[in-house]
Amino acid sequence: MIDAIQKRLLAEIADLHTVPTGAYNIRANSKLAARNTTANIDIVSKADVSGIDIRIKPGTKKESVHIPVVLSDSGLKETVYNDFYIGEDCDVVIVAGCGIHNCGVQDSEHDGVHRFFVGRNSKVKYVEKHYGEGDGRGKRILNPVTEAYLEEGSSMEMEMVQIKGVDSTVRTTKAELAANASLVVRERLMTHGNQKAKSIYETYLNGDGAAADVVSRSVAREESFQEFSSRITGNAACKGHTECDAIIMDKARVLAIPQLDANNVDAALVHEAAIGKIAGEQIIKLMTLGLTQEQAEEQIINGFLK
Amino acid sequence: MIDAIQKRLLAEIADLHTVPTGAYNIRANSKLAARNTTANIDIVSKADVSGIDIRIKPGTKKESVHIPVVLSDSGLKETVYNDFYIGEDCDVVIVAGCGIHNCGVQDSEHDGVHRFFVGRNSKVKYVEKHYGEGDGRGKRILNPVTEAYLEEGSSMEMEMVQIKGVDSTVRTTKAELAANASLVVRERLMTHGNQKAKSIYETYLNGDGAAADVVSRSVAREESFQEFSSRITGNAACKGHTECDAIIMDKARVLAIPQLDANNVDAALVHEAAIGKIAGEQIIKLMTLGLTQEQAEEQIINGFLK
Repeated sequence: MIDAIQKRLLAEIADLHTVPTGAYNIRANSKLAARNTTANIDIVSKADVSGIDIRIKPGTKKESVHIPVVLSDSGLKETVYNDFYIGEDCDVVIVAGCGIHNCGVQDSEHDGVHRFFVGRNSKVKYVEKHYGEGDGRGKRILNPVTEAYLEEGSSMEMEMVQIKGVDSTVRTTKAELAANASLVVRERLMTHGNQKAKSIYETYLNGDGAAADVVSRSVAREESFQEFSSRITGNAACKGHTECDAIIMDKARVLAIPQLDANNVDAALVHEAAIGKIAGEQIIKLMTLGLTQEQAEEQIINGFLK
Repeated sequence: MIDAIQKRLLAEIADLHTVPTGAYNIRANSKLAARNTTANIDIVSKADVSGIDIRIKPGTKKESVHIPVVLSDSGLKETVYNDFYIGEDCDVVIVAGCGIHNCGVQDSEHDGVHRFFVGRNSKVKYVEKHYGEGDGRGKRILNPVTEAYLEEGSSMEMEMVQIKGVDSTVRTTKAELAANASLVVRERLMTHGNQKAKSIYETYLNGDGAAADVVSRSVAREESFQEFSSRITGNAACKGHTECDAIIMDKARVLAIPQLDANNVDAALVHEAAIGKIAGEQIIKLMTLGLTQEQAEEQIINGFLK
């Protein structure tokens, strides 16, 4: 049973306007709302803790799994453990995400712990969107933990997006890569008001030929605070790159702490970070085209976070 | 009384082959060995702790102060506090540095705490070289602390060099910049054997127009370990850049942890870091010119640290 508010949340976090094709597991207000499995993708509720096991058969290609979570009651607090077992030679898309609508006075919190065991030569695209809304005094809190274990030759692309409405978040992502595995992370973050967002990435390049590219783009507005901490550890002949680009506006504060740890003479590690406001010339250019200053800023931010 | 070993140490750390011109204070084995003051630069021993106060009159230009320290006895351990009071509108060169010759079994340690109070619109070039030698089992330990307080419109350039023979070092540098003050740091570091070197830079850009550029270049060889931590805090309309470029060889390990902390919408902060080994093509190129692989590596390292 999905109501209108939950439907809107689903559209925001998973681009779902109808029931998705393929496998899915929709969780609403801490309960299973709908589930579908396919010949290749099985979903089973965990017996000991809240959460599901998703098992994808070796060789599964061009299939997807959607596992959105929506919270529309105020005062819910839950921790959910979802484990993905992806066989060898797969090529799949996994869409997760959490939407919170909180009109009440109590805090709502969803902490999702996602673990991915990616088999040899498999390819996974993972999309995670977080969204909050509602004008209650209760906070919207999300603390996702993502762990990825990439076997030889596998690859994973993570798109992590949190654009709006989350009051407090600590996002922890840990990845361990075997030989020739690759990881690409694209994080996009925007914070407003008094929001706090902390992103922690820990990437271990353990096998020869492993490669990681972890890039965060963020906009901090009003009095919000963001902390970005990304550590790449090179334990083999590997390549690692991490980057943080942040736009600060108003009275926001951004702290960037990348770390490179080179333990192997054949590890090549690079990081970059830049924090600054929107360049004045960019705004003026758009204003000469007829936009107000606010519209110009919105335009630039949207382009930056695209 | 300076002996032959001490003379060699002085040449290494301060390029001193004869008595320097201008003001100087030479400290050998924890005692004053020689001192000279000038009409504009006074040097006075501290009454309460080990160390000196160096007072440079406003308007002093094209003058220099040398304050080298040499330790040739084994088992010395000292902490020295040197304070530099630089008046307004000065343009001076300050050369510090410590050379340790340790042939004994006991550790030798020199911890110098240097504070610079740089007056309005003054310009300071500061050179600090650390060097160790001697085949005793005793360690050569240097833990320099450098603090710089830059008043409005002043500038300071720091050249911090530690190329050889220091077994253990924690190098802490802190700078606070007022409006339109600027700081340039060039650190060059090389470690061998089981040496450990930790560099900590903390730069606070407190006034509008303040600018800092903190760059470290290092080579880590054999089983040595280096940690580079540079934090730039932007509290005003300022510009900050910090960079760490490291070459790792053999079984060395390098950890780079820059931090950017933007507290002001008009702070523009950037950092970069790259850790890797010498590119194979570079070595091959020099080898085709007749160099052995070792010579080629030395050539590249010398160029990198120049």
